[in-house]
Amino acid sequence: MTVYLHDIPLIDAQTRFYEALDKFKLRGVLKTEIIDLNENLIGRVLAKPIWARISSPHYHASAMDGFALKSEDIQNAMPTNPVILRVDEQTIYVDTGDPVPDWANCVMPIENTEALNSDGEIVSNIRDPYAIRIRGALTPWSHIRPMGEDIVATELVLPANRKLIPVDLGAIAAAGLTQVEVVKKPIVSILPTGTELVKVGEKIKRGDIIEYNSIVLAAQIINWGGEAVRHPITKDNLDELCAQVISAAERSDLVLINAGSSAGSEDFSSRVIEKLGEVYVHGVAVRPGHPVILGMIFLENKRQVPIIGVPGYPVSAALTGEIFVKPLIHEWSGNERQGQETIEAELTRKITSPAGDDDYVRVVTAKVGDRILAAPLSRGAGVITSMVRSDGYAIIPRGIQGKEAGDKLTVILNKNKQIIKDTLLVIGSHDLTLDLLAEFLSLKGKRLVSANVGSLGGLISLNRGESHFSGSHLFDPGDGTFNSSYVEKYVTNFKALIIPWVYREQGLIIQKRNPKNISSLEDLVRQDIRYINRQRGAGTRILLDYYLEKSGLDSSQIEGYEQEEFTHLNVAAAIKSGRADTGLGITAAARALDLDFIPLYHERYDLIVPETIYQSEIFEPIKLAMKDEEFRSRVQLLEGYDASCMGTELVQSFYSDRRKNA
Amino acid sequence: MTVYLHDIPLIDAQTRFYEALDKFKLRGVLKTEIIDLNENLIGRVLAKPIWARISSPHYHASAMDGFALKSEDIQNAMPTNPVILRVDEQTIYVDTGDPVPDWANCVMPIENTEALNSDGEIVSNIRDPYAIRIRGALTPWSHIRPMGEDIVATELVLPANRKLIPVDLGAIAAAGLTQVEVVKKPIVSILPTGTELVKVGEKIKRGDIIEYNSIVLAAQIINWGGEAVRHPITKDNLDELCAQVISAAERSDLVLINAGSSAGSEDFSSRVIEKLGEVYVHGVAVRPGHPVILGMIFLENKRQVPIIGVPGYPVSAALTGEIFVKPLIHEWSGNERQGQETIEAELTRKITSPAGDDDYVRVVTAKVGDRILAAPLSRGAGVITSMVRSDGYAIIPRGIQGKEAGDKLTVILNKNKQIIKDTLLVIGSHDLTLDLLAEFLSLKGKRLVSANVGSLGGLISLNRGESHFSGSHLFDPGDGTFNSSYVEKYVTNFKALIIPWVYREQGLIIQKRNPKNISSLEDLVRQDIRYINRQRGAGTRILLDYYLEKSGLDSSQIEGYEQEEFTHLNVAAAIKSGRADTGLGITAAARALDLDFIPLYHERYDLIVPETIYQSEIFEPIKLAMKDEEFRSRVQLLEGYDASCMGTELVQSFYSDRRKNA
Repeated sequence: MTVYLHDIPLIDAQTRFYEALDKFKLRGVLKTEIIDLNENLIGRVLAKPIWARISSPHYHASAMDGFALKSEDIQNAMPTNPVILRVDEQTIYVDTGDPVPDWANCVMPIENTEALNSDGEIVSNIRDPYAIRIRGALTPWSHIRPMGEDIVATELVLPANRKLIPVDLGAIAAAGLTQVEVVKKPIVSILPTGTELVKVGEKIKRGDIIEYNSIVLAAQIINWGGEAVRHPITKDNLDELCAQVISAAERSDLVLINAGSSAGSEDFSSRVIEKLGEVYVHGVAVRPGHPVILGMIFLENKRQVPIIGVPGYPVSAALTGEIFVKPLIHEWSGNERQGQETIEAELTRKITSPAGDDDYVRVVTAKVGDRILAAPLSRGAGVITSMVRSDGYAIIPRGIQGKEAGDKLTVILNKNKQIIKDTLLVIGSHDLTLDLLAEFLSLKGKRLVSANVGSLGGLISLNRGESHFSGSHLFDPGDGTFNSSYVEKYVTNFKALIIPWVYREQGLIIQKRNPKNISSLEDLVRQDIRYINRQRGAGTRILLDYYLEKSGLDSSQIEGYEQEEFTHLNVAAAIKSGRADTGLGITAAARALDLDFIPLYHERYDLIVPETIYQSEIFEPIKLAMKDEEFRSRVQLLEGYDASCMGTELVQSFYSDRRKNA
Repeated sequence: MTVYLHDIPLIDAQTRFYEALDKFKLRGVLKTEIIDLNENLIGRVLAKPIWARISSPHYHASAMDGFALKSEDIQNAMPTNPVILRVDEQTIYVDTGDPVPDWANCVMPIENTEALNSDGEIVSNIRDPYAIRIRGALTPWSHIRPMGEDIVATELVLPANRKLIPVDLGAIAAAGLTQVEVVKKPIVSILPTGTELVKVGEKIKRGDIIEYNSIVLAAQIINWGGEAVRHPITKDNLDELCAQVISAAERSDLVLINAGSSAGSEDFSSRVIEKLGEVYVHGVAVRPGHPVILGMIFLENKRQVPIIGVPGYPVSAALTGEIFVKPLIHEWSGNERQGQETIEAELTRKITSPAGDDDYVRVVTAKVGDRILAAPLSRGAGVITSMVRSDGYAIIPRGIQGKEAGDKLTVILNKNKQIIKDTLLVIGSHDLTLDLLAEFLSLKGKRLVSANVGSLGGLISLNRGESHFSGSHLFDPGDGTFNSSYVEKYVTNFKALIIPWVYREQGLIIQKRNPKNISSLEDLVRQDIRYINRQRGAGTRILLDYYLEKSGLDSSQIEGYEQEEFTHLNVAAAIKSGRADTGLGITAAARALDLDFIPLYHERYDLIVPETIYQSEIFEPIKLAMKDEEFRSRVQLLEGYDASCMGTELVQSFYSDRRKNA
């Protein structure tokens, strides 16, 4: 028994799996069903064409409110030569939609008639007078909707494979049908397995993994046109798992076993499939997602049910859904021809890919100036927020080891293209107020996407035109200012503005009740203190290095100086978890995780924005935020924050023409 | 009491209505509700932001299957200098996802370890050996997913107003939540009213109207994010209707009264609203859709419920949904920011619009060569198939009396843009085999859209590059051929091919059992015979005119010669309904409607296709159809059809350079 996988290329895996599906005639539309027109049929796919049983209208119908008559009777009517017709003898009143009597061949609109009494006087009872006076002729069939105007009986109303939209249901009813044969939604059973899994809502302890893959997979399946059946969690017990798989297979078109992320669980999956059927593929060279199993269960009633072993990591699980489950559901449910929206975008930074894998890179997209940009998100298979934040993915195919910044990518979108226009991309230093800003902007129909690369990285990106603005808190030891000298040095391609945003406190985040008795920067070089640092280029790290030097401390003496985190909250989390004793960060991050805090410095965090963007429509909602009382007070309420400087004065950067001309 | 409406411009109607909504605080998101994560939450909109309650991972988790250990213990390990660690003393085995013990700070992947027994020999029990041998060092925190790698407790996971996608549910669960507060779907009640209405499935008689507007409106409402409640049909009884409206309003956020199309019914609607509340607008200058009523019901419990009187004509009803109901549901359900996909397209033919109305023109779209074309569909408010067939609509604003062929239009699409590429547009003469072809193509993922303008109109359109191909059966009396001489004359801009398609019988369609005793063309000039003709340019009409002349008959003596229909089936329908006694047409149309038929002539119906299109990918599925046994035999089975010539030889048209150079 070996737990190591032999990954085969995606295309080979698909070929093996589809050969088996072909063999067992599990291709194309699987089943159909008859559904009543009164049920919700929207999005369902017609299994058969709809031929009209009756015409619509099914009789000659008046197209107006008026009087049905014979056109011959009024053929000489003129303003100066009116014709009078006796109601109920030569003409009758008809409402719109009423049948036109056989003897009539046109309808005079009521507004073109004069209602008369038996004395020839005009009366107000316009619908049921004694007679009417008409002062103009009509050609035959005027103002009549002839039988079959809309639909002629026997005509094709809708072709097979039509995905039904609301008005279709009207046309089907008009054509005389009361029910339709549509493709049955394939049933997919999802079996979460693993002793470490616990249900959503249960109390969790260390080592427990909240089982939510089945929720995500079920939602995906419903979205793609299938029906999802979630099974309870099965512990890692081979017999129990076999029994569950058989019971699921008996009532499904496809079974997904979602192993816990441990090798043991996954191994159970492949043993179950081998015992109940056949494993075709164990391990596919896609990233993330390697340990996918593709197989078939053979039931006693001779039915074959495909089964997929879905990896436990959440990103791998969701992506396995995308790659293997979605095409099957689309094919089986007749939804094949939907096509996914794609967009060409420019990669914002270099990415490396394993040469042997098809690499699915999650990205966020935004339009900055005239360029559509794709910023890659975290690559970790465990980072589900990378999927939550993503606008889609790009596939770096096998054999390619990566892409350079500026390379064009085809992004397969999971959102409407519209959102790209409504996105503000901020790259730079992370601050908690950006979350509040994101929330504010979402109420204005805009989306704020932030990539946290530190202050310096943010300025460099901004200068390359890769973001709408940047958040920065870079202290200049030379002149004691924040950001100005850095903007002058690093933002050279255009005129940028510095918008003062907040003052905030920086200090040492420490364990609750300060068990290690830390009181100042000097304590960091103590042998019993483990530090957690921010990444190179982060304003907080520059601040640390400045004060270390000022205090004559040697960073090589600090244990953990090389351990890097990318946000204040992650630094706090590292301390909270006991991985480190302290780290430099902001008050709010310490408070958020109920840690203690030793205030050391005040600093200003600014927004840096190109002047052209500052003056464009896309930046308007941020100007609104800066003036919004509620927004400012929410920022002010964050501990250690002072929002009084927000937007008060615009510091213009020193855009130097010599650089432009250089 | 007057039944005439005073239409006001759409913008004024909306202003009046929204002023009332503002006044009664019925703007923005109406209500929220708490939903469990296990329910179907896809597409629901978050009412509140999601802040993480716990971190994910919520402990330091192993990222690999391997051995947890202290990095210090192996800092000197090298291939030539292995280090041996005692299992359970210096190291323990961990599966992926397992917690890393507090004393450990890294995980050595299992594939980089050698499992040993107590004698120092390599053993196969790789997970629980006596000791392991390691030949390389690790930096601290290698192969560990630190607590909070994905989500840090207190962090913003999702902003308010987020429309949930499947992976969001995973992130919400990972953040420690079990339920979410989402915007409640607004409830819309639909009340069909009108004595002439009958339920789908009920037996219908002349004058009955099948009530399907409520099915279409309900489906629209569900599609837009609302909940629909369909009420039974109310007859035109004021008291009953008032009671129904009150009961509906009590449990809804919006009430729709869908009047039968008669003025009487509609009048009831406005009286009901006046009695129970206030009418703000009665009549809106949009086409189709005029008699819209916008009002408010005042309930005894002081609640105000907006009410819309929806016109009875199906196209008007569905469009009233689009214009008035959709924005309300979007706003109330928090779905506002979706934006509809649009495309710029070239109008294929001139359309006229009433200057006083915003005119909603339904169109089908297709890409022919490099041009995106929009072909306008039937303008009738009763023609629901115009909505079924449409890809969306263009709005011709008030004050503009129409558009010329070739003018650019912005089409608001109701389908994915993708479909435009997959559409074959055939303009020309209608033939029943085009319905069979449409069905065949839909199985190949293509869509056939046909506009019936007759053979000659089809050739003229084709020559203007407005269709992919044309169907034509134009007889040349001069040389007895079909189509060739016409193609030579009318298709001058490029080289076109004539593809023989079918032979079919033309003759007189007559009433069952021939009550008027018609036997030949000569009977058409009899005084007691009413004829129904095809439109100018139709091959059938040209055929008729040729034989009339040949027989020395005068068309002005034929009663009904000026009455035109656009398809064979519509001619048959006119005869079936008794509107006419006979018309020239094809056998299959007569049989379809169970009419009798007097065969007179044989003719060939051909497809005319530009050579470039014939050779392009888009035409491939038609070539497949011509070779497909099943398709050919289905055509052959149509009475009066002979498919033996289908695709047998390509007759090349006489593309003349002199025309090109002229």
